[in-house]
Amino acid sequence: MGDLASLRDLVYRAHRSLAESGLVVGTFGNVSGVDREAGLFVIKPSGVPYESLRAEDLVAVSLATGEVSGSDLRPSSDTPTHLELYRAFPCGGIVHTHSEHATTLAQARLPVRCMGTTHADYFRGDVPATRCLTREEVEGEYERNTGLVIVETFRKAGLSPEEVPAVLVANHGPFAWGDDPFAAVENARMLEYVAGIELEMRLLDPDGPRPDGFLVERHYRRKHGRGAYYGQRRR
Amino acid sequence: MGDLASLRDLVYRAHRSLAESGLVVGTFGNVSGVDREAGLFVIKPSGVPYESLRAEDLVAVSLATGEVSGSDLRPSSDTPTHLELYRAFPCGGIVHTHSEHATTLAQARLPVRCMGTTHADYFRGDVPATRCLTREEVEGEYERNTGLVIVETFRKAGLSPEEVPAVLVANHGPFAWGDDPFAAVENARMLEYVAGIELEMRLLDPDGPRPDGFLVERHYRRKHGRGAYYGQRRR
Amino acid sequence: MGDLASLRDLVYRAHRSLAESGLVVGTFGNVSGVDREAGLFVIKPSGVPYESLRAEDLVAVSLATGEVSGSDLRPSSDTPTHLELYRAFPCGGIVHTHSEHATTLAQARLPVRCMGTTHADYFRGDVPATRCLTREEVEGEYERNTGLVIVETFRKAGLSPEEVPAVLVANHGPFAWGDDPFAAVENARMLEYVAGIELEMRLLDPDGPRPDGFLVERHYRRKHGRGAYYGQRRR
Amino acid sequence: MGDLASLRDLVYRAHRSLAESGLVVGTFGNVSGVDREAGLFVIKPSGVPYESLRAEDLVAVSLATGEVSGSDLRPSSDTPTHLELYRAFPCGGIVHTHSEHATTLAQARLPVRCMGTTHADYFRGDVPATRCLTREEVEGEYERNTGLVIVETFRKAGLSPEEVPAVLVANHGPFAWGDDPFAAVENARMLEYVAGIELEMRLLDPDGPRPDGFLVERHYRRKHGRGAYYGQRRR
Repeated sequence: MGDLASLRDLVYRAHRSLAESGLVVGTFGNVSGVDREAGLFVIKPSGVPYESLRAEDLVAVSLATGEVSGSDLRPSSDTPTHLELYRAFPCGGIVHTHSEHATTLAQARLPVRCMGTTHADYFRGDVPATRCLTREEVEGEYERNTGLVIVETFRKAGLSPEEVPAVLVANHGPFAWGDDPFAAVENARMLEYVAGIELEMRLLDPDGPRPDGFLVERHYRRKHGRGAYYGQRRR
Repeated sequence: MGDLASLRDLVYRAHRSLAESGLVVGTFGNVSGVDREAGLFVIKPSGVPYESLRAEDLVAVSLATGEVSGSDLRPSSDTPTHLELYRAFPCGGIVHTHSEHATTLAQARLPVRCMGTTHADYFRGDVPATRCLTREEVEGEYERNTGLVIVETFRKAGLSPEEVPAVLVANHGPFAWGDDPFAAVENARMLEYVAGIELEMRLLDPDGPRPDGFLVERHYRRKHGRGAYYGQRRR
Repeated sequence: MGDLASLRDLVYRAHRSLAESGLVVGTFGNVSGVDREAGLFVIKPSGVPYESLRAEDLVAVSLATGEVSGSDLRPSSDTPTHLELYRAFPCGGIVHTHSEHATTLAQARLPVRCMGTTHADYFRGDVPATRCLTREEVEGEYERNTGLVIVETFRKAGLSPEEVPAVLVANHGPFAWGDDPFAAVENARMLEYVAGIELEMRLLDPDGPRPDGFLVERHYRRKHGRGAYYGQRRR
Repeated sequence: MGDLASLRDLVYRAHRSLAESGLVVGTFGNVSGVDREAGLFVIKPSGVPYESLRAEDLVAVSLATGEVSGSDLRPSSDTPTHLELYRAFPCGGIVHTHSEHATTLAQARLPVRCMGTTHADYFRGDVPATRCLTREEVEGEYERNTGLVIVETFRKAGLSPEEVPAVLVANHGPFAWGDDPFAAVENARMLEYVAGIELEMRLLDPDGPRPDGFLVERHYRRKHGRGAYYGQRRR
């Protein structure tokens, strides 16, 4: 990934991709990317519109301390959430949106169930919804606690953040992650896509049958892990 | 805001932004902006398509008398509604649309409930629906009475028009406002966005749980008032 | 309207507008425009994609005989429907689409109910659905009988085609008309818009209250007939 | 169709058309086209994004053996499905997507019912959903078995793949085909369009009446087979 300038450029281009995806309205949403060797990640400055964002505006934050370094701009208010996710999950990029269908399901505190191969190509099993935060968690270090409750959700359910690279935060909205910021944006897009299908499924047939486990496992395994045969060998 | 020409230019650009937002079809919708020192506001001329609108076509209207000054064009037929809102609410710009999901809820006479943080980032609590107008109100000064029933809705419910900068007029559609015409357009866009999510919520789980009050209050307070920490300090 | 070339140009541009509206997919849909003095109308050739349509391809058809004149191209297969509508209704342009929400309601044999001011600004009361055609009507002169059943629907319900410039043909889709081809396209767009809102209303609250008659009448009268005060005086 | 280069060019352009149609997200979906005289078909390479796809990347596959010839790239992982369809059905092009509404119905294991003339213009009767694959079928030659279960679905129901050029694979998504790759893309687009209307119908009125058989037969016959009178004679 190289130095800070190239990380900023990468995260800047991932923001462009996010803005073009239609997943974000107004100043909602943010992307970050991490350089674990350098011990920092860079993230969107708070409240800056996508159309006026520049690569040099991206704010660098220390993984060790959570402190901003070398920037006069405030980082996204969701920065402590990203920090806790980088500390707990082995990912390279994180995206937060309020994309429509995923937000509806987050408000209804429902998971995005794995109901077919479209979902299984990207997420191995249901994308979970977190529990609600307590009053103490909200009135205390709210954004940090949002990260901690995501990590708790995965730990308690025995989920792998590499196999299920997204979550719905109750009454809030989705976070997604991936090997790098672009993979995180792609996972956020696919999450919204399967959330839309899940919403249609729930309206059409709330008790509709789950797909067989061997089918969704086959699809996940086509694309992920050893034995994957989707894509070109250089991947 | 300066003189009339610059106000016209601002409101013209806000109309361009509204047209690009996809919130309006045909000649529906209008934006106005006020210069309280000069005692006037400017508003879209009636029935003019967005694509042929020019800044100089915007019609200036007196806040004191409601009279047009210096224009041969008729102002929007909704002008008396804007006038009553400027008289009662401390806003700088107003937008009226028939945006799809907000109009559906207005027709169903249902509020846009605050069901999550997306809503709470822009609106402190439910966006109310007005009562229906009486026959006398409709057959009399209809557009003025539309403004008055909006004001009544806020007064009776003890709502602050600064904290809840939008309303659904029963069987009609939404009005939104803000510190300036662009903020009003942004609030109109966010209203339509959360109305879409609210509609999905109501179809998915009509009796779904409300978010905790401390969560939505935290989100509103992150962005608004003293102690806000969203965005950059210069805001 | 002048001579045939200018009518073809007008109807050509109305087809461009229809294609840009998103109301049509594939080769579905068609527009026609009439020159009553010349005793003819021009209409889309059958099965020609919108992107390759040229003004000179539009086919002229006699109002008296329904015969094509001066063209090697076949007119739209829906031509006899347009012919019967021009004979019965005092309109200048007709549009047929299979636009999504209007088609859903046509398949459900449900009218687009007048549930608010958005509808009332364009249509004075419900947009009706026709009865189903009989086997004899379908297996005989099907397209002509489609026109006749539309006319029958208006006659039996005492509806004015000028006040309600659209219809849903059962299990088929919408037709709309207007003073000229562009007005017909605008009415087709507004029909799809209010059909979308009507569909949301029916899913949200199938027995939701109708708006007061005096409200929708006020809105219709703001824009149509003597006493209209919407738009500029030159309209 | 000529030589391999021109087939690659045709299939390349059909991929462009598919990407522009909005039916595919990410790297989902693929198109193939066959040259039966040459005994091969060409198909998308696996996992290549649409925006970086080049005509020369398309992979040629033998109809006799299923082997790749003259390419270092892996063909789409769905290649064995295409192969079985080319062997059983007399089509010239095949498209696979995970388009939203068709995928929802595939997950619900419901057919796209023929509920109106929009459907009947393209598909003579319901577009069927396959049965679920067995564990043995999924864990064995999964993609080949997907093709075989599609063929079985048509054989058992006595359906003609020329009259019903599409299918929903249970818990997976749609396949469509046609006389050539562009016709297959058009059928995939129309399938998604009528699947959207079908989904609205099922939500609005799950037990709504079917259209009369003579109506949908008339529409299908207007466009297809001897006696068709839709389109120009040169078709």
